[in-house]
Amino acid sequence: MPESSPSLRSPQATDPTPLRRRADRARQVADVLRHQVRDGVYAAGLPGEAELVAEFSVSRNTVREALAILKAEGLIDRGPRVGTHVAQRKYDHGLHALVGLKETFKDFGEVRNEVRAATHLPAPAAVARRLQLTPGEPVVFIERLRYLGDLPLSLDLTYLVPDIGAAVLEHSLETNDVFALIEQVTEQRLGSADIALEAVSADPHTAATLDIPAGGAILMLERLTTLDDGRPVDLEYIRLRGDRITMRGNLLRSES
Amino acid sequence: MPESSPSLRSPQATDPTPLRRRADRARQVADVLRHQVRDGVYAAGLPGEAELVAEFSVSRNTVREALAILKAEGLIDRGPRVGTHVAQRKYDHGLHALVGLKETFKDFGEVRNEVRAATHLPAPAAVARRLQLTPGEPVVFIERLRYLGDLPLSLDLTYLVPDIGAAVLEHSLETNDVFALIEQVTEQRLGSADIALEAVSADPHTAATLDIPAGGAILMLERLTTLDDGRPVDLEYIRLRGDRITMRGNLLRSES
Repeated sequence: MPESSPSLRSPQATDPTPLRRRADRARQVADVLRHQVRDGVYAAGLPGEAELVAEFSVSRNTVREALAILKAEGLIDRGPRVGTHVAQRKYDHGLHALVGLKETFKDFGEVRNEVRAATHLPAPAAVARRLQLTPGEPVVFIERLRYLGDLPLSLDLTYLVPDIGAAVLEHSLETNDVFALIEQVTEQRLGSADIALEAVSADPHTAATLDIPAGGAILMLERLTTLDDGRPVDLEYIRLRGDRITMRGNLLRSES
Repeated sequence: MPESSPSLRSPQATDPTPLRRRADRARQVADVLRHQVRDGVYAAGLPGEAELVAEFSVSRNTVREALAILKAEGLIDRGPRVGTHVAQRKYDHGLHALVGLKETFKDFGEVRNEVRAATHLPAPAAVARRLQLTPGEPVVFIERLRYLGDLPLSLDLTYLVPDIGAAVLEHSLETNDVFALIEQVTEQRLGSADIALEAVSADPHTAATLDIPAGGAILMLERLTTLDDGRPVDLEYIRLRGDRITMRGNLLRSES
Protein backbone atom coordinates (compact mmCIF):
# COMPACT_ATOMS: atom_id res chain seq x y z
CA MET A 1 0.00 0.00 0.00
CA PRO A 2 2.53 2.65 -1.13
CA GLU A 3 1.60 6.25 -0.49
CA SER A 4 2.36 9.01 -2.96
CA SER A 5 3.91 11.20 -0.28
CA PRO A 6 4.49 10.81 3.43
CA SER A 7 2.11 12.99 5.40
CA LEU A 8 2.35 14.32 8.92
CA ARG A 9 0.08 11.56 10.15
CA SER A 10 0.10 8.64 7.79
CA PRO A 11 -3.24 7.16 6.73
CA GLN A 12 -1.69 3.86 7.86
CA ALA A 13 -2.06 4.99 11.45
CA THR A 14 -5.25 4.42 13.38
CA ASP A 15 -6.76 7.57 14.86
CA PRO A 16 -6.32 7.50 18.64
CA THR A 17 -8.58 9.16 21.16
CA PRO A 18 -7.11 12.22 22.95
CA LEU A 19 -6.69 10.29 26.21
CA ARG A 20 -4.92 7.41 24.57
CA ARG A 21 -2.84 9.91 22.70
CA ARG A 22 -1.59 11.42 25.95
CA ALA A 23 -0.76 8.01 27.43
CA ASP A 24 1.05 7.12 24.20
CA ARG A 25 3.05 10.31 24.28
CA ALA A 26 3.83 9.86 27.96
CA ARG A 27 5.24 6.41 27.18
CA GLN A 28 7.27 7.88 24.34
CA VAL A 29 8.75 10.56 26.63
CA ALA A 30 9.34 8.05 29.44
CA ASP A 31 11.36 5.79 27.13
CA VAL A 32 13.74 8.52 26.06
CA LEU A 33 14.12 9.79 29.63
CA ARG A 34 14.77 6.25 30.92
CA HIS A 35 17.55 6.00 28.41
CA GLN A 36 19.08 9.28 29.55
CA VAL A 37 18.82 8.36 33.21
CA ARG A 38 20.64 5.10 32.51
CA ASP A 39 23.34 6.87 30.51
CA GLY A 40 24.03 9.10 33.50
CA VAL A 41 22.99 12.31 31.73
CA TYR A 42 20.88 13.43 34.70
CA ALA A 43 23.29 12.78 37.55
CA ALA A 44 22.61 16.30 38.89
CA GLY A 45 18.82 15.91 38.59
CA LEU A 46 16.31 15.83 35.76
CA PRO A 47 15.36 19.00 33.88
CA GLY A 48 12.29 20.85 35.15
CA GLU A 49 8.85 20.18 33.72
CA ALA A 50 8.88 23.33 31.57
CA GLU A 51 12.15 22.30 29.95
CA LEU A 52 10.83 18.80 29.22
CA VAL A 53 7.62 20.31 27.78
CA ALA A 54 9.79 22.27 25.35
CA GLU A 55 12.16 19.42 24.49
CA PHE A 56 9.44 16.91 23.70
CA SER A 57 6.80 19.33 22.36
CA VAL A 58 4.17 17.83 24.66
CA SER A 59 1.85 19.17 27.38
CA ARG A 60 2.83 19.48 31.00
CA ASN A 61 0.34 16.74 31.91
CA THR A 62 2.08 14.41 29.49
CA VAL A 63 5.45 15.18 31.06
CA ARG A 64 3.97 14.49 34.51
CA GLU A 65 2.54 11.19 33.33
CA ALA A 66 5.92 10.21 31.86
CA LEU A 67 7.68 11.01 35.13
CA ALA A 68 5.03 9.01 37.02
CA ILE A 69 5.88 5.96 34.88
CA LEU A 70 9.57 6.26 35.74
CA LYS A 71 8.76 6.81 39.40
CA ALA A 72 6.63 3.65 39.45
CA GLU A 73 9.60 1.77 37.97
CA GLY A 74 11.68 2.96 40.92
CA LEU A 75 14.02 4.85 38.63
CA ILE A 76 13.41 8.40 39.86
CA ASP A 77 12.21 10.23 42.97
CA ARG A 78 10.05 13.32 42.79
CA GLY A 79 9.04 15.78 45.41
CA PRO A 80 7.79 19.34 45.76
CA ARG A 81 10.71 21.77 46.14
CA VAL A 82 13.42 19.09 45.68
CA GLY A 83 12.62 18.42 42.03
CA THR A 84 13.19 15.16 40.22
CA HIS A 85 16.22 13.01 40.90
CA VAL A 86 17.63 9.68 39.87
CA ALA A 87 16.60 7.29 42.65
CA GLN A 88 18.90 4.47 41.94
CA ARG A 89 21.91 3.70 39.88
CA LYS A 90 21.41 0.94 37.31
CA TYR A 91 24.36 -1.27 36.43
CA ASP A 92 25.28 -2.65 33.03
CA HIS A 93 25.90 -6.33 32.60
CA GLY A 94 27.54 -7.31 29.31
CA LEU A 95 25.97 -9.71 26.84
CA HIS A 96 29.20 -9.79 24.86
CA ALA A 97 31.20 -12.21 26.99
CA LEU A 98 30.83 -14.67 29.82
CA VAL A 99 31.78 -13.00 33.09
CA GLY A 100 30.67 -13.37 36.70
CA LEU A 101 29.06 -10.58 38.72
CA LYS A 102 32.12 -9.90 40.81
CA GLU A 103 34.28 -9.56 37.69
CA THR A 104 31.64 -7.39 36.03
CA PHE A 105 31.25 -4.93 38.88
CA LYS A 106 34.80 -4.84 40.18
CA ASP A 107 34.96 -1.10 39.43
CA PHE A 108 31.64 -0.27 41.11
CA GLY A 109 31.78 -1.95 44.48
CA GLU A 110 32.03 -5.18 46.32
CA VAL A 111 29.80 -8.11 45.42
CA ARG A 112 28.95 -10.00 48.58
CA ASN A 113 27.10 -13.31 48.59
CA GLU A 114 24.77 -14.57 51.29
CA VAL A 115 24.94 -18.34 50.91
CA ARG A 116 21.41 -19.65 51.52
CA ALA A 117 22.14 -23.24 50.55
CA ALA A 118 25.21 -25.28 49.64
CA THR A 119 24.37 -28.93 49.51
CA HIS A 120 24.29 -32.17 47.55
CA LEU A 121 20.99 -33.36 46.12
CA PRO A 122 19.82 -35.98 43.63
CA ALA A 123 19.70 -34.42 40.16
CA PRO A 124 16.13 -33.98 38.91
CA ALA A 125 15.81 -35.57 35.46
CA ALA A 126 15.69 -32.19 33.73
CA VAL A 127 18.85 -30.97 35.43
CA ALA A 128 20.64 -34.29 34.82
CA ARG A 129 19.84 -34.10 31.10
CA ARG A 130 21.38 -30.65 30.71
CA LEU A 131 24.49 -31.55 32.73
CA GLN A 132 24.82 -34.93 30.94
CA LEU A 133 24.40 -36.87 34.18
CA THR A 134 22.19 -39.82 35.16
CA PRO A 135 18.90 -38.76 36.82
CA GLY A 136 19.26 -39.11 40.58
CA GLU A 137 23.05 -38.79 40.48
CA PRO A 138 24.08 -36.31 43.19
CA VAL A 139 24.68 -32.74 42.07
CA VAL A 140 25.90 -29.81 44.11
CA PHE A 141 23.23 -27.17 44.62
CA ILE A 142 24.12 -23.66 45.76
CA GLU A 143 21.74 -20.79 46.41
CA ARG A 144 23.15 -17.31 46.87
CA LEU A 145 21.61 -13.93 47.44
CA ARG A 146 24.07 -11.53 45.88
CA TYR A 147 24.54 -7.95 47.02
CA LEU A 148 26.19 -5.04 45.30
CA GLY A 149 26.64 -2.35 47.93
CA ASP A 150 23.83 -2.58 50.47
CA LEU A 151 21.09 -3.82 48.16
CA PRO A 152 20.33 -7.28 46.78
CA LEU A 153 21.16 -7.57 43.09
CA SER A 154 20.26 -11.16 42.29
CA LEU A 155 19.20 -14.52 43.65
CA ASP A 156 21.21 -17.32 42.00
CA LEU A 157 20.36 -21.03 42.00
CA THR A 158 23.31 -23.08 40.79
CA TYR A 159 23.67 -26.77 39.92
CA LEU A 160 27.22 -28.08 39.50
CA VAL A 161 28.37 -31.50 38.27
CA PRO A 162 29.44 -33.59 41.29
CA ASP A 163 33.24 -33.67 40.90
CA ILE A 164 33.63 -29.94 40.26
CA GLY A 165 30.88 -29.04 42.70
CA ALA A 166 32.57 -30.90 45.57
CA ALA A 167 35.82 -29.07 44.90
CA VAL A 168 34.05 -25.71 44.64
CA LEU A 169 32.44 -26.26 48.08
CA GLU A 170 35.95 -26.38 49.58
CA HIS A 171 36.22 -22.65 48.95
CA SER A 172 34.44 -19.59 50.27
CA LEU A 173 31.28 -18.87 48.31
CA GLU A 174 30.73 -15.56 50.13
CA THR A 175 33.33 -13.65 48.20
CA ASN A 176 34.10 -15.60 45.03
CA ASP A 177 32.30 -15.92 41.69
CA VAL A 178 31.42 -19.55 40.96
CA PHE A 179 32.97 -19.04 37.50
CA ALA A 180 36.33 -18.15 39.06
CA LEU A 181 36.14 -21.13 41.43
CA ILE A 182 35.35 -23.56 38.59
CA GLU A 183 38.38 -22.35 36.64
CA GLN A 184 40.52 -22.55 39.76
CA VAL A 185 39.56 -26.09 40.77
CA THR A 186 39.59 -27.52 37.23
CA GLU A 187 42.63 -25.57 36.03
CA GLN A 188 40.64 -25.18 32.81
CA ARG A 189 39.05 -22.13 31.23
CA LEU A 190 35.31 -21.90 30.80
CA GLY A 191 34.24 -22.22 27.19
CA SER A 192 30.84 -20.78 26.44
CA ALA A 193 27.30 -20.58 27.77
CA ASP A 194 23.82 -20.93 26.34
CA ILE A 195 21.63 -18.26 27.86
CA ALA A 196 17.92 -17.58 27.95
CA LEU A 197 16.60 -14.23 29.18
CA GLU A 198 13.02 -13.57 30.22
CA ALA A 199 11.05 -10.97 32.13
CA VAL A 200 8.89 -12.41 34.92
CA SER A 201 6.95 -10.94 37.84
CA ALA A 202 8.41 -11.84 41.21
CA ASP A 203 6.38 -14.25 43.31
CA PRO A 204 5.84 -12.90 46.85
CA HIS A 205 8.63 -14.92 48.47
CA THR A 206 11.19 -14.02 45.80
CA ALA A 207 10.14 -10.37 46.05
CA ALA A 208 10.65 -10.38 49.82
CA THR A 209 14.05 -12.03 49.40
CA LEU A 210 15.20 -9.48 46.81
CA ASP A 211 13.63 -6.60 48.76
CA ILE A 212 11.32 -5.44 45.98
CA PRO A 213 7.51 -5.05 45.87
CA ALA A 214 5.56 -8.28 45.22
CA GLY A 215 5.03 -8.67 41.49
CA GLY A 216 8.07 -6.50 40.73
CA ALA A 217 9.87 -7.13 37.44
CA ILE A 218 12.67 -9.68 37.44
CA LEU A 219 15.13 -10.35 34.64
CA MET A 220 15.39 -14.13 34.68
CA LEU A 221 18.60 -15.53 33.24
CA GLU A 222 19.11 -19.23 32.66
CA ARG A 223 22.65 -20.14 31.80
CA LEU A 224 24.27 -23.48 30.99
CA THR A 225 28.03 -23.09 31.01
CA THR A 226 30.62 -25.47 29.56
CA LEU A 227 34.32 -25.87 30.09
CA ASP A 228 36.54 -25.13 27.12
CA ASP A 229 36.44 -28.84 26.21
CA GLY A 230 32.68 -28.54 25.73
CA ARG A 231 31.59 -30.37 28.89
CA PRO A 232 28.53 -28.77 30.56
CA VAL A 233 29.34 -28.22 34.23
CA ASP A 234 27.24 -25.35 35.62
CA LEU A 235 23.49 -24.78 35.25
CA GLU A 236 22.23 -21.53 36.81
CA TYR A 237 18.87 -19.86 37.31
CA ILE A 238 19.55 -16.22 38.09
CA ARG A 239 16.90 -13.70 39.11
CA LEU A 240 18.20 -10.17 38.59
CA ARG A 241 16.36 -7.19 40.04
CA GLY A 242 14.83 -5.41 37.08
CA ASP A 243 15.37 -2.01 38.67
CA ARG A 244 19.12 -2.53 39.15
CA ILE A 245 20.42 -4.25 36.02
CA THR A 246 20.58 -3.53 32.30
CA MET A 247 21.94 -6.20 29.99
CA ARG A 248 23.89 -4.71 27.11
CA GLY A 249 25.19 -6.19 23.91
CA ASN A 250 25.93 -5.67 20.26
CA LEU A 251 24.32 -7.68 17.49
CA LEU A 252 25.55 -8.09 13.92
CA ARG A 253 23.19 -8.22 10.98
CA SER A 254 24.91 -11.23 9.42
CA GLU A 255 26.81 -13.90 11.24
CA SER A 256 30.18 -13.97 9.60
CA MET B 1 37.13 -20.71 54.61
CA PRO B 2 38.00 -24.14 53.16
CA GLU B 3 36.22 -27.13 54.61
CA SER B 4 37.90 -30.47 55.10
CA SER B 5 35.08 -32.27 53.31
CA PRO B 6 31.87 -31.09 51.69
CA SER B 7 28.87 -31.97 53.83
CA LEU B 8 25.23 -32.41 52.94
CA ARG B 9 24.49 -28.89 54.11
CA SER B 10 27.54 -26.74 54.11
CA PRO B 11 28.28 -24.67 57.22
CA GLN B 12 28.53 -21.75 54.77
CA ALA B 13 24.77 -21.85 54.37
CA THR B 14 22.47 -19.97 56.70
CA ASP B 15 19.86 -22.16 58.37
CA PRO B 16 16.45 -21.36 56.90
CA THR B 17 13.13 -21.73 58.70
CA PRO B 18 10.89 -24.60 57.50
CA LEU B 19 8.49 -22.20 55.77
CA ARG B 20 11.20 -20.37 53.92
CA ARG B 21 12.67 -23.71 53.08
CA ARG B 22 9.48 -24.75 51.32
CA ALA B 23 9.26 -21.48 49.39
CA ASP B 24 12.90 -21.86 48.41
CA ARG B 25 12.33 -25.40 47.21
CA ALA B 26 9.20 -24.40 45.34
CA ARG B 27 11.20 -21.75 43.48
CA GLN B 28 13.86 -24.32 42.69
CA VAL B 29 11.28 -26.75 41.27
CA ALA B 30 9.50 -23.96 39.39
CA ASP B 31 12.72 -22.93 37.64
CA VAL B 32 13.44 -26.40 36.32
CA LEU B 33 9.83 -26.90 35.24
CA ARG B 34 9.76 -23.51 33.49
CA HIS B 35 12.76 -24.61 31.54
CA GLN B 36 11.10 -27.88 30.53
CA VAL B 37 7.88 -26.13 29.53
CA ARG B 38 9.84 -23.78 27.31
CA ASP B 39 11.77 -26.62 25.74
CA GLY B 40 8.48 -28.28 24.74
CA VAL B 41 9.01 -31.35 26.92
CA TYR B 42 5.47 -31.14 28.32
CA ALA B 43 3.49 -30.59 25.12
CA ALA B 44 1.11 -33.38 26.17
CA GLY B 45 0.70 -31.98 29.71
CA LEU B 46 2.83 -31.83 32.82
CA PRO B 47 3.49 -34.92 34.94
CA GLY B 48 1.12 -35.50 37.87
CA GLU B 49 1.93 -34.20 41.34
CA ALA B 50 3.06 -37.62 42.60
CA GLU B 51 5.55 -37.96 39.76
CA LEU B 52 6.96 -34.47 40.43
CA VAL B 53 7.21 -35.27 44.15
CA ALA B 54 9.38 -38.26 43.23
CA GLU B 55 11.48 -36.46 40.63
CA PHE B 56 12.37 -33.51 42.85
CA SER B 57 12.39 -35.31 46.23
CA VAL B 58 10.08 -32.66 47.71
CA SER B 59 6.68 -32.65 49.40
CA ARG B 60 3.39 -32.44 47.57
CA ASN B 61 2.81 -28.96 49.04
CA THR B 62 6.12 -27.81 47.57
CA VAL B 63 5.12 -29.14 44.14
CA ARG B 64 1.79 -27.32 44.42
CA GLU B 65 3.54 -24.09 45.36
CA ALA B 66 5.89 -24.46 42.38
CA LEU B 67 2.98 -25.00 40.01
CA ALA B 68 1.22 -21.97 41.52
CA ILE B 69 4.25 -19.83 40.65
CA LEU B 70 4.15 -20.97 37.02
CA LYS B 71 0.39 -20.45 36.88
CA ALA B 72 0.81 -16.90 38.16
CA GLU B 73 3.34 -16.30 35.38
CA GLY B 74 0.68 -17.37 32.87
CA LEU B 75 2.79 -20.31 31.74
CA ILE B 76 0.50 -23.16 32.75
CA ASP B 77 -3.19 -23.86 33.41
CA ARG B 78 -4.35 -26.17 36.18
CA GLY B 79 -7.71 -27.62 36.94
CA PRO B 80 -9.31 -30.49 38.82
CA ARG B 81 -9.74 -33.52 36.54
CA VAL B 82 -7.99 -31.89 33.52
CA GLY B 83 -4.54 -31.83 35.13
CA THR B 84 -1.81 -29.33 34.37
CA HIS B 85 -1.20 -28.05 30.86
CA VAL B 86 1.02 -25.56 29.09
CA ALA B 87 -1.12 -22.42 28.74
CA GLN B 88 0.85 -20.60 26.18
CA ARG B 89 3.62 -21.19 23.76
CA LYS B 90 6.71 -19.02 24.32
CA TYR B 91 8.77 -17.98 21.35
CA ASP B 92 12.54 -17.73 21.11
CA HIS B 93 14.12 -14.55 19.83
CA GLY B 94 17.81 -14.82 19.01
CA LEU B 95 20.47 -12.68 20.63
CA HIS B 96 23.04 -14.00 18.14
CA ALA B 97 22.16 -11.81 15.15
CA LEU B 98 20.15 -8.79 14.17
CA VAL B 99 16.81 -9.90 12.74
CA GLY B 100 13.32 -8.45 12.70
CA LEU B 101 10.28 -10.14 14.25
CA LYS B 102 8.78 -11.20 10.95
CA GLU B 103 12.05 -12.82 9.88
CA THR B 104 12.43 -14.45 13.30
CA PHE B 105 8.97 -16.00 13.39
CA LYS B 106 8.47 -16.83 9.73
CA ASP B 107 8.13 -20.52 10.62
CA PHE B 108 5.65 -19.96 13.44
CA GLY B 109 3.00 -17.70 11.99
CA GLU B 110 2.25 -14.35 10.54
CA VAL B 111 3.48 -11.18 12.23
CA ARG B 112 0.87 -8.46 11.72
CA ASN B 113 1.42 -4.85 12.74
CA GLU B 114 -1.23 -2.43 13.88
CA VAL B 115 0.23 0.96 13.00
CA ARG B 116 -0.72 3.34 15.86
CA ALA B 117 1.38 6.26 14.65
CA ALA B 118 3.45 7.09 11.59
CA THR B 119 4.45 10.71 11.62
CA HIS B 120 7.18 13.33 11.52
CA LEU B 121 8.16 15.06 14.75
CA PRO B 122 10.99 17.29 15.98
CA ALA B 123 13.76 15.10 17.39
CA PRO B 124 14.04 15.42 21.18
CA ALA B 125 17.66 16.24 22.08
CA ALA B 126 18.29 12.73 23.41
CA VAL B 127 17.02 11.08 20.25
CA ALA B 128 18.91 13.53 18.03
CA ARG B 129 22.15 12.76 19.85
CA ARG B 130 21.87 9.02 19.27
CA LEU B 131 20.90 9.41 15.62
CA GLN B 132 23.60 12.07 15.05
CA LEU B 133 21.04 14.72 14.13
CA THR B 134 20.49 18.31 15.27
CA PRO B 135 17.94 18.64 18.12
CA GLY B 136 14.60 19.68 16.65
CA GLU B 137 15.42 18.30 13.22
CA PRO B 138 12.39 16.29 12.03
CA VAL B 139 12.54 12.53 12.55
CA VAL B 140 10.06 9.91 11.49
CA PHE B 141 8.26 8.32 14.42
CA ILE B 142 6.40 5.04 14.04
CA GLU B 143 4.45 3.18 16.72
CA ARG B 144 3.35 -0.36 16.02
CA LEU B 145 1.51 -2.96 18.05
CA ARG B 146 2.81 -6.25 16.71
CA TYR B 147 0.82 -9.47 16.74
CA LEU B 148 1.95 -13.04 16.31
CA GLY B 149 -1.18 -15.10 15.75
CA ASP B 150 -4.09 -13.52 17.63
CA LEU B 151 -2.14 -12.08 20.56
CA PRO B 152 -0.02 -8.96 20.89
CA LEU B 153 3.68 -9.73 21.08
CA SER B 154 5.25 -6.29 21.35
CA LEU B 155 4.72 -2.56 21.24
CA ASP B 156 7.48 -0.89 19.20
CA LEU B 157 8.37 2.82 19.19
CA THR B 158 10.69 3.63 16.30
CA TYR B 159 12.64 6.78 15.41
CA LEU B 160 14.16 6.90 11.92
CA VAL B 161 16.52 9.47 10.45
CA PRO B 162 14.54 11.81 8.14
CA ASP B 163 15.72 10.70 4.69
CA ILE B 164 15.34 6.98 5.30
CA GLY B 165 12.21 7.47 7.40
CA ALA B 166 10.43 9.34 4.62
CA ALA B 167 11.24 6.56 2.16
CA VAL B 168 10.13 3.86 4.62
CA LEU B 169 6.74 5.60 5.05
CA GLU B 170 6.11 5.04 1.32
CA HIS B 171 5.70 1.32 2.06
CA SER B 172 3.21 -0.71 4.03
CA LEU B 173 4.16 -0.93 7.68
CA GLU B 174 1.40 -3.45 8.41
CA THR B 175 3.20 -6.41 6.93
CA ASN B 176 6.89 -5.50 6.67
CA ASP B 177 9.71 -5.42 9.22
CA VAL B 178 11.25 -1.94 9.45
CA PHE B 179 14.66 -3.62 9.07
CA ALA B 180 13.67 -5.06 5.70
CA LEU B 181 12.28 -1.71 4.56
CA ILE B 182 15.44 0.15 5.56
CA GLU B 183 17.56 -2.26 3.54
CA GLN B 184 15.15 -1.99 0.63
CA VAL B 185 15.02 1.80 0.46
CA THR B 186 18.74 2.34 1.11
CA GLU B 187 19.96 -0.61 -0.99
CA GLN B 188 22.42 -1.12 1.87
CA ARG B 189 22.69 -3.85 4.46
CA LEU B 190 22.24 -3.09 8.13
CA GLY B 191 25.48 -3.29 10.08
CA SER B 192 25.05 -3.83 13.78
CA ALA B 193 23.00 -2.72 16.75
CA ASP B 194 23.70 -1.72 20.32
CA ILE B 195 21.06 -3.25 22.53
CA ALA B 196 19.99 -2.80 26.14
CA LEU B 197 17.60 -5.27 27.76
CA GLU B 198 15.69 -4.64 30.97
CA ALA B 199 12.75 -6.09 32.85
CA VAL B 200 10.09 -3.52 33.77
CA SER B 201 6.53 -3.69 35.11
CA ALA B 202 3.95 -2.54 32.59
CA ASP B 203 2.25 0.75 33.38
CA PRO B 204 -1.57 0.43 33.19
CA HIS B 205 -1.91 1.86 29.68
CA THR B 206 0.86 -0.29 28.23
CA ALA B 207 -0.62 -3.33 29.95
CA ALA B 208 -4.04 -2.65 28.41
CA THR B 209 -2.46 -2.16 24.99
CA LEU B 210 -0.52 -5.43 25.19
CA ASP B 211 -3.50 -7.26 26.75
CA ILE B 212 -1.72 -8.28 29.95
CA PRO B 213 -2.55 -7.57 33.62
CA ALA B 214 -1.42 -4.15 34.92
CA GLY B 215 2.07 -4.47 36.36
CA GLY B 216 2.80 -7.53 34.20
CA ALA B 217 6.44 -8.16 33.32
CA ILE B 218 7.76 -6.58 30.13
CA LEU B 219 11.08 -7.28 28.47
CA MET B 220 12.18 -3.82 27.38
CA LEU B 221 14.61 -3.74 24.47
CA GLU B 222 16.32 -0.56 23.34
CA ARG B 223 18.13 -0.92 20.07
CA LEU B 224 20.18 1.56 18.05
CA THR B 225 20.84 0.13 14.61
CA THR B 226 23.42 1.29 12.08
CA LEU B 227 23.83 0.74 8.37
CA ASP B 228 26.87 -1.26 7.28
CA ASP B 229 28.75 2.04 6.82
CA GLY B 230 28.29 2.71 10.56
CA ARG B 231 25.66 5.44 10.29
CA PRO B 232 22.99 5.18 13.04
CA VAL B 233 19.57 5.25 11.38
CA ASP B 234 17.02 3.48 13.58
CA LEU B 235 16.40 3.93 17.31
CA GLU B 236 13.76 1.61 18.75
CA TYR B 237 12.11 1.12 22.13
CA ILE B 238 10.48 -2.30 22.07
CA ARG B 239 8.24 -3.68 24.83
CA LEU B 240 8.00 -7.44 24.53
CA ARG B 241 5.40 -9.38 26.50
CA GLY B 242 7.34 -11.27 29.14
CA ASP B 243 5.00 -14.23 28.94
CA ARG B 244 5.48 -14.72 25.19
CA ILE B 245 9.16 -14.17 24.47
CA THR B 246 12.47 -15.70 25.52
CA MET B 247 15.70 -14.12 24.29
CA ARG B 248 18.38 -16.70 23.60
CA GLY B 249 22.05 -16.41 22.95
CA ASN B 250 25.47 -17.90 23.40
CA LEU B 251 28.30 -16.17 25.23
CA LEU B 252 32.01 -16.94 24.98
CA ARG B 253 34.32 -16.77 27.98
CA SER B 254 36.99 -14.82 26.11
CA GLU B 255 36.42 -12.45 23.27
CA SER B 256 38.62 -13.73 20.49
